[in-house]
Amino acid sequence: MDERVREHARTLIDWSARIEAGDDVVVRVGPDAHELAVAVAEELGKRDANVVTTYASGEITRAYLRAHEGDFEVDPEYERALLENADAVLTLGGGRNTAATADVPGERRQAYDRARREIRKARLDTKWVLTEHPTRSLAQQAGMSYEAYQRFVYDAINRDWEAQAEKQAKVAEVLNDASEVRLVSGTETDLTMSVEGRVAVNSAASVDYDSHNLPSGEVFTAPHATEGEVCFDVPMTINGRRVADVALRFEDGEVVDYTAAQGEDAITEVVETDDGARRLGELGIGMNRGIDRVTDNILFDEKMGETVHLALGRAYASNFPEGREDEANESAVHVDLITDVSENSRIVVDGEAIQEDGRFWFE
Amino acid sequence: MDERVREHARTLIDWSARIEAGDDVVVRVGPDAHELAVAVAEELGKRDANVVTTYASGEITRAYLRAHEGDFEVDPEYERALLENADAVLTLGGGRNTAATADVPGERRQAYDRARREIRKARLDTKWVLTEHPTRSLAQQAGMSYEAYQRFVYDAINRDWEAQAEKQAKVAEVLNDASEVRLVSGTETDLTMSVEGRVAVNSAASVDYDSHNLPSGEVFTAPHATEGEVCFDVPMTINGRRVADVALRFEDGEVVDYTAAQGEDAITEVVETDDGARRLGELGIGMNRGIDRVTDNILFDEKMGETVHLALGRAYASNFPEGREDEANESAVHVDLITDVSENSRIVVDGEAIQEDGRFWFE
Repeated sequence: MDERVREHARTLIDWSARIEAGDDVVVRVGPDAHELAVAVAEELGKRDANVVTTYASGEITRAYLRAHEGDFEVDPEYERALLENADAVLTLGGGRNTAATADVPGERRQAYDRARREIRKARLDTKWVLTEHPTRSLAQQAGMSYEAYQRFVYDAINRDWEAQAEKQAKVAEVLNDASEVRLVSGTETDLTMSVEGRVAVNSAASVDYDSHNLPSGEVFTAPHATEGEVCFDVPMTINGRRVADVALRFEDGEVVDYTAAQGEDAITEVVETDDGARRLGELGIGMNRGIDRVTDNILFDEKMGETVHLALGRAYASNFPEGREDEANESAVHVDLITDVSENSRIVVDGEAIQEDGRFWFE
Repeated sequence: MDERVREHARTLIDWSARIEAGDDVVVRVGPDAHELAVAVAEELGKRDANVVTTYASGEITRAYLRAHEGDFEVDPEYERALLENADAVLTLGGGRNTAATADVPGERRQAYDRARREIRKARLDTKWVLTEHPTRSLAQQAGMSYEAYQRFVYDAINRDWEAQAEKQAKVAEVLNDASEVRLVSGTETDLTMSVEGRVAVNSAASVDYDSHNLPSGEVFTAPHATEGEVCFDVPMTINGRRVADVALRFEDGEVVDYTAAQGEDAITEVVETDDGARRLGELGIGMNRGIDRVTDNILFDEKMGETVHLALGRAYASNFPEGREDEANESAVHVDLITDVSENSRIVVDGEAIQEDGRFWFE
């Protein structure tokens, strides 16, 4: 086995999920993430943790959802029981076709998501981590050869996370003390958000940093009272469909208008899921300079240095002071959109620019 | 998709597992059983059942077991909770290497099996069915081309199970009324077993017949007080190792001596698992004439017409009258061994031959 796969598994288990002896671990395995799953099972065995592997296939989800015509049962007890009793849920993404679910009707998917709120909540109450095994399908999505894509992925994942965490702490500190963030970019983006009373997370790819993605490398918070306009110029894929140049207009914290140069129907589906889907759940500042290009994969793209992303929908509880988690925006969805801030852009916090044209004040 | 795969899925769900709307179904997917899993998910969706897919990989089990040096936790609560809340567990076998776990130390596997008794019991308390998707690995094990092997599998699975059930009912009736079964074959097999007080199961590939294999096609009971000698001349693979010509000698219901022309260490591992592994858990009479050759796969081989199989270890509760299930032989293992009775052989029930040289009295 490629030694980089083993290092990925160790980073996931030790740095990211902080697995301990006796932990009940669910490993969700994508159809082409088999090799990483084998390495993860080996490391879990060494640490005396327990393992249950589930199979996370887009083709299976598609077949089930398209065939299912009636109402979905709300939070089936058996699946809920598995997750409520788990200590950690490690998702090893890696499919064979990133468009596998492209022809699932949007309302069907939304209804399914809505019926599974408590199951999702149970998973998010564990030491959950989402990572991805490099597959040929993801290489294709990135427009890269398989070998080059593997290098890209392991450069982003197998790195010095302690050092990354220290750099990010500076930005998190500023956001924690702030009231207002303004994002200005080109002629199409001028957005103002309140971050008053919110907690900025130093997302360093570890549950000990309230960070659940591997790779990570961002600082994020939960904005509210959003006003203004924003254009997301980084193209991406949402629910199997390509979207480009999504423009949103906010009034009083809610999306009141939107357009997209491509994939507008995918955006319509998202914002119509529920009330929370029209509000922002996240403002994230990408700081992982190990990720040096857009690969049309949100897990990597949103962490890229010199980008900012905003998510429609669900906010993370970690962005709220203890006891005030119920203020978090609720939604069945959490969909990130990304904008490039490397040129002609500013991130302004309480009137002071903390970043201009991609450079932070301390750089 | 091959229409035979869809028919397999429908047979599994409707005839075998009797899935109903609202059922909580666990589908255990082998690494190369993906296509069948997609068809099963579609049929479950149509029937308004719920689905959780787990990933059943020999390579993952191997990696975990080899790395795990301490004691295994007994019945981890999260996995137990999943199965105790499930209505049905459908296992879709289909790996890439039937020897994937061949180098797992026997004691390690036995310790793991012993630590998971309640989890296994929870699964066996559901409408559980074990089937297999034809894979290239299984074709290789059978010494057949992939296309010919697919034909073999679907001939065995997609058939008239009502008619098969009627034929088997005759044999089940005789065994139900019987006290003693004697098996004589060649010069090496002369075995006497009591079936007094036991229930013969007409195993017609449906939970409604207390039958949990697809394909099935056998009548089985739980013998006791076994005396004599038996040689299993059908070669097979146990825990990834080839065995041939296993000979067992029984006294007072227990194995007191054994030899094998090949793979004797695999037999040693089995009989040393626990006390119950030295006693018989099953006597089965193969009656599926749709299975016309040995393919070195127990799910198929043991159902073949003109064979008899005996299992060391765990007995099925279905072979005992209600309220007397606690008399069933208990063990962490259930390992079948097969003998050809097509020539120079008799199955004698209470002194009367019900089969001679492979032909039943009614044939």
